[in-house]
Amino acid sequence: MATVEMIEYEKASPEVREVYDDIMATRNIDWVNNFWKVLAVQPELLRRTWNGVKEVMAPGAIDALTKEMLYVAVSVGNACKYCINSHTAAARKKGMSEAMLAELMAVVAMANQTNALANGFQIHLDDAFQNGGQTPE
Amino acid sequence: MATVEMIEYEKASPEVREVYDDIMATRNIDWVNNFWKVLAVQPELLRRTWNGVKEVMAPGAIDALTKEMLYVAVSVGNACKYCINSHTAAARKKGMSEAMLAELMAVVAMANQTNALANGFQIHLDDAFQNGGQTPE
Amino acid sequence: MATVEMIEYEKASPEVREVYDDIMATRNIDWVNNFWKVLAVQPELLRRTWNGVKEVMAPGAIDALTKEMLYVAVSVGNACKYCINSHTAAARKKGMSEAMLAELMAVVAMANQTNALANGFQIHLDDAFQNGGQTPE
Amino acid sequence: MATVEMIEYEKASPEVREVYDDIMATRNIDWVNNFWKVLAVQPELLRRTWNGVKEVMAPGAIDALTKEMLYVAVSVGNACKYCINSHTAAARKKGMSEAMLAELMAVVAMANQTNALANGFQIHLDDAFQNGGQTPE
Amino acid sequence: MATVEMIEYEKASPEVREVYDDIMATRNIDWVNNFWKVLAVQPELLRRTWNGVKEVMAPGAIDALTKEMLYVAVSVGNACKYCINSHTAAARKKGMSEAMLAELMAVVAMANQTNALANGFQIHLDDAFQNGGQTPE
Amino acid sequence: MATVEMIEYEKASPEVREVYDDIMATRNIDWVNNFWKVLAVQPELLRRTWNGVKEVMAPGAIDALTKEMLYVAVSVGNACKYCINSHTAAARKKGMSEAMLAELMAVVAMANQTNALANGFQIHLDDAFQNGGQTPE
Repeated sequence: MATVEMIEYEKASPEVREVYDDIMATRNIDWVNNFWKVLAVQPELLRRTWNGVKEVMAPGAIDALTKEMLYVAVSVGNACKYCINSHTAAARKKGMSEAMLAELMAVVAMANQTNALANGFQIHLDDAFQNGGQTPE
Repeated sequence: MATVEMIEYEKASPEVREVYDDIMATRNIDWVNNFWKVLAVQPELLRRTWNGVKEVMAPGAIDALTKEMLYVAVSVGNACKYCINSHTAAARKKGMSEAMLAELMAVVAMANQTNALANGFQIHLDDAFQNGGQTPE
Repeated sequence: MATVEMIEYEKASPEVREVYDDIMATRNIDWVNNFWKVLAVQPELLRRTWNGVKEVMAPGAIDALTKEMLYVAVSVGNACKYCINSHTAAARKKGMSEAMLAELMAVVAMANQTNALANGFQIHLDDAFQNGGQTPE
Repeated sequence: MATVEMIEYEKASPEVREVYDDIMATRNIDWVNNFWKVLAVQPELLRRTWNGVKEVMAPGAIDALTKEMLYVAVSVGNACKYCINSHTAAARKKGMSEAMLAELMAVVAMANQTNALANGFQIHLDDAFQNGGQTPE
Repeated sequence: MATVEMIEYEKASPEVREVYDDIMATRNIDWVNNFWKVLAVQPELLRRTWNGVKEVMAPGAIDALTKEMLYVAVSVGNACKYCINSHTAAARKKGMSEAMLAELMAVVAMANQTNALANGFQIHLDDAFQNGGQTPE
Repeated sequence: MATVEMIEYEKASPEVREVYDDIMATRNIDWVNNFWKVLAVQPELLRRTWNGVKEVMAPGAIDALTKEMLYVAVSVGNACKYCINSHTAAARKKGMSEAMLAELMAVVAMANQTNALANGFQIHLDDAFQNGGQTPE
C-alpha cells in the first residue's frame, strides 16, 4: 500500500474515470497502474500529471523509446524503485532489447562516475563549453 | 582552476600524452578539455576513465547521440555544471537540434516530477512491473 | 547566459506573450524572470510549466508561503542555485521573516542529517509508520 | 533489522534510558521507534541527535506541522523510505489532512520538475534574485 | 530478482567465468555476489567494472578499509540499499569495528547537515578555500 | 554574499563571540570562515552545529583525516561547492597528499558508478549481505 488509499475504477468519480479511460485508450491496455490510482486522491493532480506525461512522452523531435530510456536514467539517479521498474518495463514494451538495456545502464553508470570526478575536483569549465557550446547568432 | 593542478600537454609524461593523443584522434579535435588535464594528476585514473568513456560512448545497440543525451540527463540529476555544459555541447555537435534539447529537458523534468510523486507517496510496485517487466523464460 | 537563447518579450510570439502577460498579471510585477524566457524556446513547455506552477502554488489546503518554503527545501536538495535564490526571494516577498528563514534551514539540515542515519543504518520501518501511519477505514 | 543491533529499553544503559524517557515524555507516547534504538549504539550520537531534533522541531517562527511537512519534502529528495513514512505519520498526527498531503506532494513534485529545468538549461540568476532577494540595509 | 537475468557460473561463458574466477581469487571466497552475476549480461561491462573496482579498491595512498568506508558514505547519499549493505559487510570483514561504523555514520550525517546549510544559505567561498586550499607552486 | 547577512566578530553578540572564539581556539587559527558567520544569524543554530561538528570530527575510533575525507565524499554527492572546497582544504591541512586526493576521488567516482548499476538493475541483496553482514550474537 501507499501512504494514501488507492482509488479503484469502480469507486472513482466521473472526473477520475475520464482520466483512467484516457490512460487505457492511449496505452491500449485494460488496466491502470498504481501510480495513477494514488494520484487520484487529488483529481486535478491526476489530470495535470497525466496530461503532462502524455504530452511529453509522445514522439516528437525525440522518439518515444529514447524518451523512455531517458526516464529510466533519471529514475536511477533518484533511487526511485517504482520508477526504475515501471519505466524499464515500458521501455522493453517499446522495443528496448537486452543489449540496449545493458548499454543504457553502462552509460548511466559512467556518467555518474565522471560527474563525481568533475564535481569532486571542481573542474573549471572550458570556454568552448560555455552555455552548452551554444553558437552565437 | 580546479582543486588540483592541470597537466598541460607540454608538461605531460609520455604516458599521459598517449592518452591525450588518443582523445584528440578519437574526437578529431586538436585540444584536450580540462576534465582530462585534471585526471592526469593520476595517470592510471586518466587512462582507465578515458578507456571507459571511449568504450561506453561508442555507438552500439544505442547510437552515440542518444548516449550523449542520457549523459546530459544524468548530469542534471547530479547538478554537475561542468558535465551539463560539456555534454550539451557534445550532443549539439553530434546533431542534437534545439527542438531535441527542449524535449530532452522536458522529459528529464517530467521524470523528476513523477519520481517525486512515486517516492513521496511510496507507491507499491504493480505485479506487471516486477523485475522491470522482465518476461520469464 | 543559459544553454539556450532567452526569448525577450519584444521578440516573443503571441503565444509566448500571452503566458508572459499572465505571469506578470498573476504576480503583479512588470518583468518576467529568466526561467520563463528560457522555457519559451518550446512554447508548450512554457505554457504547461507555468500553468502547473500557477495551479500548484496557489493557496489551497496549504498556504502560499508554506508552499514557497517547501520549494526552497526541495531546491536545497537538488543543489539548484537558481531555484534556491529565486524561491528564497519569493518566500521573503510573501512574508518569510529572517527568523523563519533560519528555522527553515535548520529543519532542512536536520532532516538531511537524520535521513542519512536512517538510510545509512538501513533502519527497519516500525509497524506504526507503515503506509505513512495511514489509518485503515 | 538494521545494520547494527537495536538497543531495547530493558537492555539500555541509564544514559540511553534517559534519552528514551525524554523522547516518550516529549511526544507523549509509551514506545520508542527503531530510529532511536539504532542510534543508541553510540549514546552520544543518540543524545546529540535527539537534542537537535527536539530543539529544531519545536514550534518557533515556523509552526510544528509546517516543520514536519518540510521534513517530508527533504525525505522524498533523499529517497529515504523510513523517513518518508515516519514523518508522513508524524505530520498526520499533528493535523495534516489528506488534502494537505496531496498538495504537499504536488508542490514537492513541481519543485523537482522546475529544479531540473533550471539546472538543465543552466539558467542565469536574475539580478533581483541575487542573495535570495536580500534587501541591503 | 533484478531487472535482467543473473548469469550463474555453470551457465557462464569462458569470458565471464574468467572474471568470476578472478573475483573469487582476489577476495579469497568461493562464491560470486549478485552484482557481478547481473553485470555478466554484458561481458565487457562486467570485465571493465571489475577491473576498475579491483584497481581502485586495492590499498595505495589510502588503505583498503578507509576506501571501503568511503564507499559506504557514497552509497548512503545514493540511497543504494544493495550498496550500503554489501559495503558495510565488506568494511566489517576488513576490520571496521562497531564503534567505527557508528562514527562513520555520525560523520556522514553531520556532513549532510552542514552541506544543506552551505547550499541552502548559498554561502560564498572564502578565499582561503579557493581551489580546495591548493597551494600555488 | 549569502542569502543572509554574515555576522562579523566585531558586531557579534557575546553569545556568538564565544562560539567564534572556540572555533579559532580549537582549530588554532585567527579567523572564522563564512559558514559560521552565516549560521550566526541564529545563535542556537550556530552553537548546536559547531558543537556537533567539533564532537563528530574529533579523532575517535576513526582518525581526523579519514573523517575529513569522508566529509569530502559526502560533499561531492551533494554538489556542494562550498563544502567540497573547504573540506578538501581542511583535509590537505591535516595531511592529505595529492596522491591521496586522487585516490579519494577515484573511489568516490567508482562508488557512484557501481551504485548506479546496483540501483539501475535493481539487484537483489545477497543473504550474506543482509543487515550489513552483521553477525548474530
